[in-house]
Amino acid sequence: MKKNVLEISSFSNEKLKYISGLKEKKNREKSKTFFIEGYREIQRAKVSGKVKFEYLLISPSCYLGENEEELVDSIDAKTILVPKQVFEKISYRDRPDGLIATAELPDFSLSPKIKLSGDPVLVIEGVEKPGNLGTILRTAEGAGFNAVFVADPRLDLFNPNVIRSSTGTLFTLDVFQSDIQELYPVLKKSGYRTIAVTPEAKSLHWDGNLKGKIALVFGSEQYGLSSYARSQSDEYISLPMKGVADSLNLAMSAGILMYEVLRQNRK
Amino acid sequence: MKKNVLEISSFSNEKLKYISGLKEKKNREKSKTFFIEGYREIQRAKVSGKVKFEYLLISPSCYLGENEEELVDSIDAKTILVPKQVFEKISYRDRPDGLIATAELPDFSLSPKIKLSGDPVLVIEGVEKPGNLGTILRTAEGAGFNAVFVADPRLDLFNPNVIRSSTGTLFTLDVFQSDIQELYPVLKKSGYRTIAVTPEAKSLHWDGNLKGKIALVFGSEQYGLSSYARSQSDEYISLPMKGVADSLNLAMSAGILMYEVLRQNRK
Repeated sequence: MKKNVLEISSFSNEKLKYISGLKEKKNREKSKTFFIEGYREIQRAKVSGKVKFEYLLISPSCYLGENEEELVDSIDAKTILVPKQVFEKISYRDRPDGLIATAELPDFSLSPKIKLSGDPVLVIEGVEKPGNLGTILRTAEGAGFNAVFVADPRLDLFNPNVIRSSTGTLFTLDVFQSDIQELYPVLKKSGYRTIAVTPEAKSLHWDGNLKGKIALVFGSEQYGLSSYARSQSDEYISLPMKGVADSLNLAMSAGILMYEVLRQNRK
Repeated sequence: MKKNVLEISSFSNEKLKYISGLKEKKNREKSKTFFIEGYREIQRAKVSGKVKFEYLLISPSCYLGENEEELVDSIDAKTILVPKQVFEKISYRDRPDGLIATAELPDFSLSPKIKLSGDPVLVIEGVEKPGNLGTILRTAEGAGFNAVFVADPRLDLFNPNVIRSSTGTLFTLDVFQSDIQELYPVLKKSGYRTIAVTPEAKSLHWDGNLKGKIALVFGSEQYGLSSYARSQSDEYISLPMKGVADSLNLAMSAGILMYEVLRQNRK
């Protein structure tokens, strides 16, 4: 290791308490910093260029062997070395991989002057479950969506479970947070058609024209679309449901739709 | 309520300890019974006709108001009434809905004489995470798949989290458990093409012919396909991955593929 490292062996150290505390929303709000765990997640946060790191907590005996030293050396942060048993106490995971960072909260707010590339985008409204949002981001990234708009979320985007289930794509994608009423005019001005996905729609997704500048809009797990999105969208589509169950999991619906968009837009 | 109900108010009662214990695999193996929580899950277990109930634990002050009384009256089981605070201790959920049943473990083993309808089927090999299997079952049901073959699972099919995330479709679908080496000959004899989904395949899923008698085969989260499935399948396809991430969540991949099968086979 090439950098200066501070060794701390007691969990009761104030710095470690601060880092561990960032798993809680109230502490993130107070300090304006957050918690990123895992090689892949920290690596993606780094390459995104959006994240200003603060601390890097390492425990080499937990490393899984993916060039951790190199990543550690490349990150500009105060580095703290802790024993395995201390690391496991701070970790958010069942099987920690020896790397946790803290960083300043990046600004994901929507600028009304945003320039959109013309590719399809995703709008997730009122999302409640961090695991769903993270899975949606991971899938959006796989499906080649560049921008995801998180409107009126019922969760904190920097919840550790969003970061974990997104596998760090929260950073590599362009993610914007705003009110739905602020977002729709921006999308319309940029020439986007808003296509809301809702079980009440009669038109099935595979019959819809999902080419070009489209914004797929999904409502919350429990409440569905807001009355605003319900009334202000340009088109409405649904996924076919063949069995006794009346709906799919939100992340699943979004993933299926995004891959249908990718299919219709393939070269 | 029309039936005889036993009232128990102490959590230390032996019957309640037995019921609560069924959340653990070792106790399910010993007693050959399992734990089903929730109105929707119990209702689907009932209509499936596959489940022989034993106890029904109720706490009406937790009911969410979906005709619980009617369901309780329709189930042939020893019914136990408990106070809310006792129910919450036994519950597997954050927000319990006042209904837990126990039942004999149904036999999901594969019969070599199985008759398949000719519709597409799903094979999930070596699955590790109960939430993934449950989500896959829920989505399979939505996509109109009737049969799901769970080969060499690394989990217990009657894990409460499988049941919960399947929303009870574990019972309404035809689910079979077997070795992969026992399953492939059965599928081939019935005229099924086995199509393994793996990142190494060059052919993309939307270019594949997914019509008719096909079995989509997915490997485990961590290890992928077994060497048997890797060598013995008829065809191989992959999902396109556009971003920096190298894979999707297993349940997501399966859901996207099942809806592509549904699309290709639509009338």
